[in-house]
Amino acid sequence: MTVTPEQRAEIDAAKSARAETRRATVPALEELLYEPLTVLDHGFVRVIDYMGDDAAVVQAARVSYGKGTKRVSDDAGLINYLMRHRHTTPFEMCEIKYHVKLPIFVARQWIRHRTANVNEYSARYSVLDKEYYIPAPEQLAAQSQNNRQGRGDVLEGDEAKRVLDILRADAEQTYGNYAWMLNEDEGGKVTDESRSGLARELARMNLTLNTYTQWYWKVDLHNLMHFLSLRADAHAQYEIRVYADAMMETLKRWVPLTASAFEDYRMGAAHLSAKGLSVVKRLIAGEQVDQKASGLSLREWRELMATLGREV
Amino acid sequence: MTVTPEQRAEIDAAKSARAETRRATVPALEELLYEPLTVLDHGFVRVIDYMGDDAAVVQAARVSYGKGTKRVSDDAGLINYLMRHRHTTPFEMCEIKYHVKLPIFVARQWIRHRTANVNEYSARYSVLDKEYYIPAPEQLAAQSQNNRQGRGDVLEGDEAKRVLDILRADAEQTYGNYAWMLNEDEGGKVTDESRSGLARELARMNLTLNTYTQWYWKVDLHNLMHFLSLRADAHAQYEIRVYADAMMETLKRWVPLTASAFEDYRMGAAHLSAKGLSVVKRLIAGEQVDQKASGLSLREWRELMATLGREV
Amino acid sequence: MTVTPEQRAEIDAAKSARAETRRATVPALEELLYEPLTVLDHGFVRVIDYMGDDAAVVQAARVSYGKGTKRVSDDAGLINYLMRHRHTTPFEMCEIKYHVKLPIFVARQWIRHRTANVNEYSARYSVLDKEYYIPAPEQLAAQSQNNRQGRGDVLEGDEAKRVLDILRADAEQTYGNYAWMLNEDEGGKVTDESRSGLARELARMNLTLNTYTQWYWKVDLHNLMHFLSLRADAHAQYEIRVYADAMMETLKRWVPLTASAFEDYRMGAAHLSAKGLSVVKRLIAGEQVDQKASGLSLREWRELMATLGREV
Amino acid sequence: MTVTPEQRAEIDAAKSARAETRRATVPALEELLYEPLTVLDHGFVRVIDYMGDDAAVVQAARVSYGKGTKRVSDDAGLINYLMRHRHTTPFEMCEIKYHVKLPIFVARQWIRHRTANVNEYSARYSVLDKEYYIPAPEQLAAQSQNNRQGRGDVLEGDEAKRVLDILRADAEQTYGNYAWMLNEDEGGKVTDESRSGLARELARMNLTLNTYTQWYWKVDLHNLMHFLSLRADAHAQYEIRVYADAMMETLKRWVPLTASAFEDYRMGAAHLSAKGLSVVKRLIAGEQVDQKASGLSLREWRELMATLGREV
Repeated sequence: MTVTPEQRAEIDAAKSARAETRRATVPALEELLYEPLTVLDHGFVRVIDYMGDDAAVVQAARVSYGKGTKRVSDDAGLINYLMRHRHTTPFEMCEIKYHVKLPIFVARQWIRHRTANVNEYSARYSVLDKEYYIPAPEQLAAQSQNNRQGRGDVLEGDEAKRVLDILRADAEQTYGNYAWMLNEDEGGKVTDESRSGLARELARMNLTLNTYTQWYWKVDLHNLMHFLSLRADAHAQYEIRVYADAMMETLKRWVPLTASAFEDYRMGAAHLSAKGLSVVKRLIAGEQVDQKASGLSLREWRELMATLGREV
Repeated sequence: MTVTPEQRAEIDAAKSARAETRRATVPALEELLYEPLTVLDHGFVRVIDYMGDDAAVVQAARVSYGKGTKRVSDDAGLINYLMRHRHTTPFEMCEIKYHVKLPIFVARQWIRHRTANVNEYSARYSVLDKEYYIPAPEQLAAQSQNNRQGRGDVLEGDEAKRVLDILRADAEQTYGNYAWMLNEDEGGKVTDESRSGLARELARMNLTLNTYTQWYWKVDLHNLMHFLSLRADAHAQYEIRVYADAMMETLKRWVPLTASAFEDYRMGAAHLSAKGLSVVKRLIAGEQVDQKASGLSLREWRELMATLGREV
Repeated sequence: MTVTPEQRAEIDAAKSARAETRRATVPALEELLYEPLTVLDHGFVRVIDYMGDDAAVVQAARVSYGKGTKRVSDDAGLINYLMRHRHTTPFEMCEIKYHVKLPIFVARQWIRHRTANVNEYSARYSVLDKEYYIPAPEQLAAQSQNNRQGRGDVLEGDEAKRVLDILRADAEQTYGNYAWMLNEDEGGKVTDESRSGLARELARMNLTLNTYTQWYWKVDLHNLMHFLSLRADAHAQYEIRVYADAMMETLKRWVPLTASAFEDYRMGAAHLSAKGLSVVKRLIAGEQVDQKASGLSLREWRELMATLGREV
Repeated sequence: MTVTPEQRAEIDAAKSARAETRRATVPALEELLYEPLTVLDHGFVRVIDYMGDDAAVVQAARVSYGKGTKRVSDDAGLINYLMRHRHTTPFEMCEIKYHVKLPIFVARQWIRHRTANVNEYSARYSVLDKEYYIPAPEQLAAQSQNNRQGRGDVLEGDEAKRVLDILRADAEQTYGNYAWMLNEDEGGKVTDESRSGLARELARMNLTLNTYTQWYWKVDLHNLMHFLSLRADAHAQYEIRVYADAMMETLKRWVPLTASAFEDYRMGAAHLSAKGLSVVKRLIAGEQVDQKASGLSLREWRELMATLGREV
């Protein structure tokens, strides 16, 4: 279950409240506020609060560049200009706060982004719920195919079934033992009066890395886009990419001009090395260039050809 | 002039706008929103936007500590507890954005706080207004008395008048020469067609450090309090302390429970070294302790006696 | 096994190398360089590199405060002064790099300190070794006694044995299944040619949180002390405190004057709230003060009495 | 004068000292250690300390990616790969510390890079030396030509002479008044016993922005390269670019493989938007594309043509 009935009631209460404000407000994001977007089998991401909008980015840029920015006729043009020239500070003037429920091994990747504020549910002080991530069968296949081993075999059929059975059985068993060692229920009530129970801070070590945790994660717009550029990328692991994808939707609602510039200048953009640029110039000039003549390593050559959509 | 007529009109427009939101809203701060609080002779600080409130701090702590925090009966108690035990992450969940107009030498102290987002008016791209800070006569006296020289003389009378005349005359002259070198008015129109004019990025170097600049400054609640604990402190230079004082007022309106805990556990608090604590214990036990017997250096002894409100 | 024979050989090679340098060098720390200090059952922490020494702190302070600092006669006095008055930037001028092997649940606490650089062994790309943390029996007892439940019972005897058996058996089983799902050995060689194997990035989710990981962790002296003040504290979980304790030893060798000031002004220091300070003043004046008359909450009163070493 | 005789003696003493170390050492950088590289008329940048080398980057990457990285045959290849794919954390494992003397208006740009440690000479506590930056005549011309005004006129001849005279005269006068108001010499001795003098923290406001200040600046290799990519860029103001250029030389000595990858993948690289990439593909396919058909704005079209070295 992604959301408990208690959480559902809290969400509905938060959604029904209304207040008047003088602050910049974004109706398209307000619609989504507090509502969990389902991710993976039990996870979610939901926007809890936000500050600023596209106009706040523009306003900050105009403070910075003063009268100079008046020459850019409209907001979209200015935002495109800022994105293109990596003038990042105006984007830092907006802030968003998410509530995320995610498997621990995903949380471990996510937390490497240090320029954000985090409050995570603490298994040192509280008992974790019995919820763990089990991949969908097609994910076993897809991810194994991309595996470093480079073997073409797809993980499916009996082996796939066996893997899912193992993941489920091990999570069940380790959680069951966690609960037994704690000797308390979720409300903190002792289960068996004849036993003393293990400290929560120790018992948690028996849980597997697919156990769900949750946190509040607050970040400014610039650093959110940096996160998304890495985690919504095709090279990111599927299990974190689906969170980034859901957040991309919130980005589009929140700051549509910025989101559009982000897609053009970041997500869909290409980075050419000095050597790669020189190859591109020769190709445009009609020259036939192969890897040997390019001065690029084989790996770089392949990456460049992929960028240019050419056969290797 | 602190605020131009154009700025005044913009402020009034921003203040009169209203929107409906589902976000946490703080009416006491909304009243103040956009309104400049005057600081020094031409400076100001004004709240432009905010995110979260006292309840957001509590909410983040409860996510972190989970069921454990239910034992603290009320929000004020929990916020006091977090402040006392330096659990700082829940305070990072609130954010505030200021627009500040301030002399450059103050901006240079301020910017040392790196955990904030800044967009400053750029004299590389725009022409700075002719506004500079001149201290009030009583500040000349007060600050000179605290001066490192340790001489008791107060700077007043003729010497004070002379100092103010110098500051004013030098600012007038350097600004006048700045404008002449630029050879353009504030709107970018060339003043003298027979001259080419100096680049803005170079001309600005002729301005004195009391010239006013302005910026947007965005910070989370935890880092705001860290800033205030250093800059609203009696040891801070008067010219930055008055900004911190104005911001303390916005803190009280925004997050009254947090502001109250901050005053008790930070602003009015005392930090005792291990040796200092041992002296305190001996004093409580009724022992007569002097500096020699204390194990403290003379300077530390004096600081401890000052903390305890005792004569040295 | 804490260190493999291959690692031992690498360490010995690194230790035997010598170079001449013009940089500040600390012989007492050089002795320890590269050598693992054993922590927990399979963990370690070892210093890999460092930059600066006590004199670098002093030098940075003298650049900052200029001729003013000449009034402080010696380095120790200046370092004490900086520490006492929380002038933190000179301490940021020194840097240290550790290689740490630690259980994942400890790594999850540790990584919350964001002001450091980290490179962690990636289970997305590589196979984790079969090493997991099992607490010593006395730790089960000690930590359960401090447990939130507040029951006095000590976890020992049969229940303790049962807990250790569970932790060991579950770690063995989940690691065994991890290896089976991977279908490759540590060298990346396929174990069973008839199966395709699960991607490493997915298989790792079956591991328990007491599995060991490792990382390089680089931090400046100021932030190292902040980390130590929180993690070498009595309230920190035992499993991270033992790492902090080992690092305290490296601190003493590296920057003895700073380490001494740190112990006096941080580790052994006391923080009094405004209200707590007022109670202390009344106690010194010989007044009898009880909780009711103190204006403190019961919890604060107890904390203050504990600080002052008085019976409640 | 860039360096005083006292400083020269200190530098020579530091350079002549030698110690034995087990740490990674870079002879090519050791040669340069402590030696000021002259920048502008009175400024300098000098390396004071460093930690790590190219091998430390490789070592950190191998800890991160484990056995996976063994497939990259050599260090240069791995460093190129890390740079190309923006795997930044291994570069954070090296650190360098500079001592920089620079005009205040340059310091104000520089300090915007927040991910570094700084200790600046404090004019609040100490008296600044009488040293100010005066541009070379060819800089007046070059920078005015690039000026926003977009007029082709070059600032030279009489107007240029007049500008230099103004800058010099205003700096002389404001410094003279600063000294008079302070009523003390650099050693802190009172000049005129009949006057009390103005506090240093106030007197400094009369100085112009071309006055020299100095600081220690410590940064990791990743953030140093980020700084250089912005400040050694052709769009950076000349007065900060010359510092970046000098630091590029230290980068090449310190970490030659990283510096080479940095030049190929950053300094000489091109960033194409999704739309720009699509234009490039069409050009390579031999299609004639003009701005209208490109889907790019005029400004973007010009930037793309400049990148590709084509006439507009």
